[in-house]
Amino acid sequence: MSTFWASTRNMALIVQKYGGTSVGSIDHIRAVAEKIIQTREQGHEVVVVVSAMAGETDRLVQLAHALSRMPNPREFDVLLSTGEQVTIALLSLALLDRGCPARSYTGAQVHIRTDSAHNKARILGIVDSKIRMDLSMGKVVVVAGFQGTDEMGNITTLGRGGSDTTAVALAAALKADECQIYTDIDGVYTADPKVVADACRMSQVTIEEMLEMASNGAKVMQSRAVEFAGKYNVPVRVLSTFEEGAGTLITVDEQNMQHPVVSGVAFNRDEAKLVIQGVPDSPGVAASVLKPLSEAHIEVDMIVQTVAKEGTTDLAFNVHKRDFKLAFSILENISEDLGAQCIIKDEHVAKLSLVGVGMRSHAGIASQMFQTLGREGINIQLISTSEIKISVIIDEKCLELGVRALHDAFQLGTVEQETVESCSS
Amino acid sequence: MSTFWASTRNMALIVQKYGGTSVGSIDHIRAVAEKIIQTREQGHEVVVVVSAMAGETDRLVQLAHALSRMPNPREFDVLLSTGEQVTIALLSLALLDRGCPARSYTGAQVHIRTDSAHNKARILGIVDSKIRMDLSMGKVVVVAGFQGTDEMGNITTLGRGGSDTTAVALAAALKADECQIYTDIDGVYTADPKVVADACRMSQVTIEEMLEMASNGAKVMQSRAVEFAGKYNVPVRVLSTFEEGAGTLITVDEQNMQHPVVSGVAFNRDEAKLVIQGVPDSPGVAASVLKPLSEAHIEVDMIVQTVAKEGTTDLAFNVHKRDFKLAFSILENISEDLGAQCIIKDEHVAKLSLVGVGMRSHAGIASQMFQTLGREGINIQLISTSEIKISVIIDEKCLELGVRALHDAFQLGTVEQETVESCSS
Repeated sequence: MSTFWASTRNMALIVQKYGGTSVGSIDHIRAVAEKIIQTREQGHEVVVVVSAMAGETDRLVQLAHALSRMPNPREFDVLLSTGEQVTIALLSLALLDRGCPARSYTGAQVHIRTDSAHNKARILGIVDSKIRMDLSMGKVVVVAGFQGTDEMGNITTLGRGGSDTTAVALAAALKADECQIYTDIDGVYTADPKVVADACRMSQVTIEEMLEMASNGAKVMQSRAVEFAGKYNVPVRVLSTFEEGAGTLITVDEQNMQHPVVSGVAFNRDEAKLVIQGVPDSPGVAASVLKPLSEAHIEVDMIVQTVAKEGTTDLAFNVHKRDFKLAFSILENISEDLGAQCIIKDEHVAKLSLVGVGMRSHAGIASQMFQTLGREGINIQLISTSEIKISVIIDEKCLELGVRALHDAFQLGTVEQETVESCSS
Repeated sequence: MSTFWASTRNMALIVQKYGGTSVGSIDHIRAVAEKIIQTREQGHEVVVVVSAMAGETDRLVQLAHALSRMPNPREFDVLLSTGEQVTIALLSLALLDRGCPARSYTGAQVHIRTDSAHNKARILGIVDSKIRMDLSMGKVVVVAGFQGTDEMGNITTLGRGGSDTTAVALAAALKADECQIYTDIDGVYTADPKVVADACRMSQVTIEEMLEMASNGAKVMQSRAVEFAGKYNVPVRVLSTFEEGAGTLITVDEQNMQHPVVSGVAFNRDEAKLVIQGVPDSPGVAASVLKPLSEAHIEVDMIVQTVAKEGTTDLAFNVHKRDFKLAFSILENISEDLGAQCIIKDEHVAKLSLVGVGMRSHAGIASQMFQTLGREGINIQLISTSEIKISVIIDEKCLELGVRALHDAFQLGTVEQETVESCSS
């Protein structure tokens, strides 16, 4: 049964988002319709956001690539947006067939206004009048995720995971009581349960923690959607479509939470490290290295500059594996001008992060982390910290060992913590 | 090579419509893109209207029927309209990939405004400003056929063959020089070449003749599209996507045509006949029979009332085969009230028609037609005539014999006629 967990009030406005796997077949669409009807029968108003049926976007991408190696971004969006349009129609048909009043809208129809950055547009605003009118008439409103239109009326899409952003943006516009993200996992875990057998589902996590986890490899929700939730103060809950449970509430409200010092361990295997060594040190060296990378749209993550021998400096950083080759060739091009001695590259690294808002008020977490990794013989290659996160780059062979060691050392697998609800294994 | 046939001017505005078979695969879409580029290279401005890829609409219909036996009409339209949206994107990608500037629009984006009759909406107007601007910038404009939006912004579809209507409506709005309907046959024939071996393609046919032929079973173009062409004086040309040739020009302009008395033979197998016999004759009998049929949305075609025995009347008419059972049960229901003696039904009939604007000024065509059929031993069951058409209902077993006999008797297979261009076989 789909229950509204966050509030004890009788009636609430809930935005529910169902991803591609959740609506991946006719049977799944029927099951989603049942879930929605149950929520409605509890007296709640429901707005639903859906993705394209699993596999549909890939099918459309293949059609486009059969015609063009570099599909025109505007026309690519016209094509891709049909995937969600099919789902809104089918889900509405399923709801109506069960006697539940429902009405579908494309992004254009509810004026999900975006900028014109095709394939990765940002939502600028939503006109909610049609949705409010339908809700007041007792209808379930089904909105196509992932899509909008720009000022000129061109169809745009929001990029991977864009339906999450649509759901959070709609929840913000409608001042919904909760935005529920239904997916194939039942919440946010202290670590990936595939790696750590006793990883625990957290009942709550702060938006800041969620952001750090998302950008450090925990693929529960798109970062942009989490940012949006933080900016507009939208309570988001991550739940499983296929299992019962309260999921994980992602909240801005830290007051009502019992914080463990460390909330979770995140990791990312898609990392590669580059070091440019022995550059004669002068002001602006870092900028000379980073500017051509940024111009090539390569995102540079952790950056460490160290003074090596007298008068020279080493600059180390990591990039996404897909950008590795391009970044390396850019460094080769500029290394002579910079007078660098050599470039060291390493594709076999991974990033390991400890996340927790409790770190703000606790000293010594970093040293405990480094000791733990040291005891396991894991060498730390780069370090980067924020107020609520410590990340290290290590040899990818040691990643799973490191994740388990940290999960143990910070007792994330114990159920004593109040925000941890259920444990895997 | 795709040539503009109707005009010798250097530059013309041409609307081209490609049906589902013409865009049924990636290879076909590439071939259509080539045809469009050739037209453009001749100096013409091109607006293209496309249908869904062959098979796509059926796939979507199956998905809908898997969820609902009677799909909600509004949501059904949201679903079906994605088919054409996929095609406009793919065709635009193909054009752009070949360096041809192109831009796609859904029905909603160019404000193809319709009434709210979902699944069979009628076009009320089109806003052509975006299209004109794109044309002035040298772009090919690709518009989704079959779809529009109503006053409230709901997506509507125009029903079977609706893309033809979209093309003609766009040609009317843009005052295009010609509307070219590309299909898998290369024009309008004096009779179905599958039935009559020496059937000839006509170089021209009037809109009136085309209307009679369409409503009498010649499935080249949707009647509504032909009506639209007549109303707004749009020259339409029917051509083959896959073969070269000038096709058939459908025109309002009779002046420049050499008219044969009879232009063609049309037929329709989807007919069924009903006779209600021995109804006591009183004013309003026909209305009492036809009103309940019309209330059940059954279209009654040829109606013949005859005085049978003294004081009673027989009423005979034909309906589409799909409406036959319902029509029969309605007649059964009312026959007692009317005091009718019996109802005769016959599902094994067909309609055979002679069409030609030349009939207006020629007497004796009907008698020649009846004599021809009589010579072949074909019994005529019902007769209906208009200024430019004579239709008869006959036994469906005799249909092909009748078609060939009439085609011969009126010498439609001879190439002497000036409007006949190429002969099959």
